[in-house]
Parts: sequence; C-alpha cells; structure tokens
Amino acid sequence: MLSKKELKDIQSLRHKKFREETGLFTAEGPKIVSELMQLIPEQFDAIYALKEWLQHHETKGIKCVEIEESELEKLSQLQTPNTVIAVIRQFTPVKPLAAERLTLYLDAIQDPGNLGTIIRIADWFGIRDVVCSEGSADLYNSKVVQSTMASIARVNVYYDHNLQWLKNEPSPKYAAALDGESIYTSGKAESGVLIIGNESKGISPEAMQLASRKVTIPRRGDAESLNAAVATGIILSHIVG
Amino acid sequence: MLSKKELKDIQSLRHKKFREETGLFTAEGPKIVSELMQLIPEQFDAIYALKEWLQHHETKGIKCVEIEESELEKLSQLQTPNTVIAVIRQFTPVKPLAAERLTLYLDAIQDPGNLGTIIRIADWFGIRDVVCSEGSADLYNSKVVQSTMASIARVNVYYDHNLQWLKNEPSPKYAAALDGESIYTSGKAESGVLIIGNESKGISPEAMQLASRKVTIPRRGDAESLNAAVATGIILSHIVG
Repeated sequence: MLSKKELKDIQSLRHKKFREETGLFTAEGPKIVSELMQLIPEQFDAIYALKEWLQHHETKGIKCVEIEESELEKLSQLQTPNTVIAVIRQFTPVKPLAAERLTLYLDAIQDPGNLGTIIRIADWFGIRDVVCSEGSADLYNSKVVQSTMASIARVNVYYDHNLQWLKNEPSPKYAAALDGESIYTSGKAESGVLIIGNESKGISPEAMQLASRKVTIPRRGDAESLNAAVATGIILSHIVG
Repeated sequence: MLSKKELKDIQSLRHKKFREETGLFTAEGPKIVSELMQLIPEQFDAIYALKEWLQHHETKGIKCVEIEESELEKLSQLQTPNTVIAVIRQFTPVKPLAAERLTLYLDAIQDPGNLGTIIRIADWFGIRDVVCSEGSADLYNSKVVQSTMASIARVNVYYDHNLQWLKNEPSPKYAAALDGESIYTSGKAESGVLIIGNESKGISPEAMQLASRKVTIPRRGDAESLNAAVATGIILSHIVG
C-alpha cells in the first residue's frame, strides 16, 4: 500500500521537470523491467509490483513495494497496465568521440516512439552513441523508454546544445537527405557521424552545413518519404552492416 | 452545420463494423487529404472542412460541407484536430500474383502504426501488393490510414483467409527470421513473396512451413529484435533496392 505522497512522487515522473529534479525515470512491464534488472541493477531506485510479480522474481536487493491493481492503474502510463513499474536512476551521458566509432546524430527527432525505436536500431547495429540536438524528444519520456525495449541501458545518449558537439567533431559527417549519393554505393563507415533529420523538416540548414557528404536511400516507387526510424535502420544496414 | 445524424454517421466510421457496412473510411488533415484528392478524387464521398480550408482548395466537384471547429473536434481522431476530414470509399482489393512482382505478406501485424508504415515503405520501394493474414490490423483503421501518408491509394492491400493465398502461391517465399541467410548476400528478388511476422511472435509455424528460404538482418550489437516496420524497410532495401 502506497502513501499519497509516494503515489504522487511516482506520478510526477511523467513530467520532464520532475524527472530532471529527481534524476529518476520509470520503466513498465515485466519484459523491460526484467531486462533492465539484469543489465543495470545498481541503477534501480525501487520496484512497485503486484504480488504475482513479486512471487516470481528475484530482485537482487532492490527495494520492492507490493501494490494493489488499483494503485498500479494510477501509476501506469500504459493503455493496459501490467504487473510492475520500476523507478530507475538516470544515466550519466558521456561525450561521444565519433573518430573512434560511428555516432548517430539526431537533429530534432520529436516523436518519442521514433527516438526509442532509433535507440533500439542503434543497439542492433552495435552503435554505442547517439547524440540528440535541442528540440529532440526527452530520453526519459516513458514512450521513449518503452520503445527502446531495454536498449536504453546499452546506448549512450548525449544531448547537444546549439550544435556545439557537432561543430567541434572533426570526423566525416554523413547527412541523410533526399538528394545525396546512393547508400548502395557510398561505401562503409566505421567512424564518423550519421545525421538524421526531423520527421517533417529533415535536417536543419545549420546542421546540413556541417555535413561532409549527403547519403540517400534510392526510391523505386512513389512514397514521398520514409519514416525517420525506418530510414535510420536502412542506412545503418548499408553503411555498417 | 451538421445534423446529429451526419455527425453520428461519420463518428461511427471509427468502428470496423460500420466501415464494413458502409464501405467508407476517413482520412484527416490537409496534407493527406490533398494528396488523396489528387490521386483518387473519384473515391471521395464527401469533405468536411473549416471555412479556411475550403477557401484555399479546389475540390473538383467533390461534395463539401463547411463545419465549425467544435464539430471538427467531435469528428476528429487526431490529438490536435486539423482543418479537414474526408470520407472516402474503400478500395477493391485485387488478388496479387507474386510470380509477376515481389509481394509482401504480413503475418498478423497488429499495430496500426506498423501496418501503415509498412505500406508506406512498400510504396517507397515500388512494391505494389501487400497481403495481410487474418489477425492483422484493419487497413481502414484511422491510425493505419494516417501513417500510410497517402500510400494507401497506391498500394493494393489484400486480406488472406486461413493462409489460402499463401498456400496457393507457387512463387519462392522468403521468410524474415532470426536464423536465416544474411540479406547482405542472399541476392535480389524481383518476384516472389517476402513474409514478415507479428511484432512479438514472429512468423506463425503454419506460415513458416510454407516458406522456401529464411532471410536475416545480421546483428552486430545487442538488441533482441528490430521493430517489424524497420525490419521490412531494411530487408526490402537489400532485396529490391
């Protein structure tokens, strides 16, 4: 049974302001919580779970609170609340060095589902660093967390300010654009930066100016564009795959 | 100004049952409505729009009804209602011939956003036919329609029953799986069937039994899987790109 204050504290983590103040975020559902418990048990602040979940899980000394279904419903941000919600400490971002390994640069990816999906794609292709420009979705937004499918614990996500990181990074920069070289023939890249643009506006003129090459997914049909996460997956499969 | 009956009739198109009874569906927002008006004006039943939209658009003899913002709010399924909603007649699906051109087979893609995104990807790569197994999302669900970004008017989507189409199709069938040949070396395919599985369960054993080859996106990192739409885009870029 939770106190009113505990309930309110966890609910407040829906808002970026409170996540920043506390340095905490939430993850929900047995699959992602179990995976994160394996990967980063030391980051866990507490687990709030139904009795049935607690009976079937080892919790490695993490603080666990048994809650009722009615409480879970109040805490949950999922359409179908599950059995468990974890409160986890945020990661310490590291400034990536793109000269050492290929880094993704997301120029204002605003849709939380897209950001989470791109982090999961990065993890699939062994990309360890993602830089987000200002105007990108917040990494700890619950939709981002859920759609990373635990890749949030394996990929370093660093937020840039005023394109400062991008400007100071001397490595070659590939910009995903509609009018560049074909990714089928542009060759592989083990280091450097791949810049992906905003869902509707593409890469901003300021970021595009910093790019050394433009790369394009050749179109054979008639769709005007591809979803940003889909485009990221396709380009990575050709340049690092 | 709409009558209560008109309002209710349009709202009822949120439900598959009423869409099937009437053979209608809705599309919302100026971008998709304008594109569909260019592509398939003959399919339009009516347009419901704010005065500002009507003043700036040619409507080619399509029935137009001016509505108030409060009415649009009642009709809209978007989080931020826009300026226009169109009621459109459903398409007549054609049975695809995979021996003539590569056909996508979606084995129970349940998320409407994924289905719409996959139709848009198909359109980008010039794939003209998509077959959906039973248990797939409904093509005319508004989230599917919106996420196709007008590709719904260019791609033929056919619903299979009991795997009948897949069973009767003699062309080679490629199944997207985690344990197949690498798509980097499996070669191109101008015809045949590419089978994509359900978001969490993958391809059903019954459909997998009908496959002639398995193809895989090689993993370099640690993510357990890729989103179904992302995987479709990556595979298509290698086998038809």
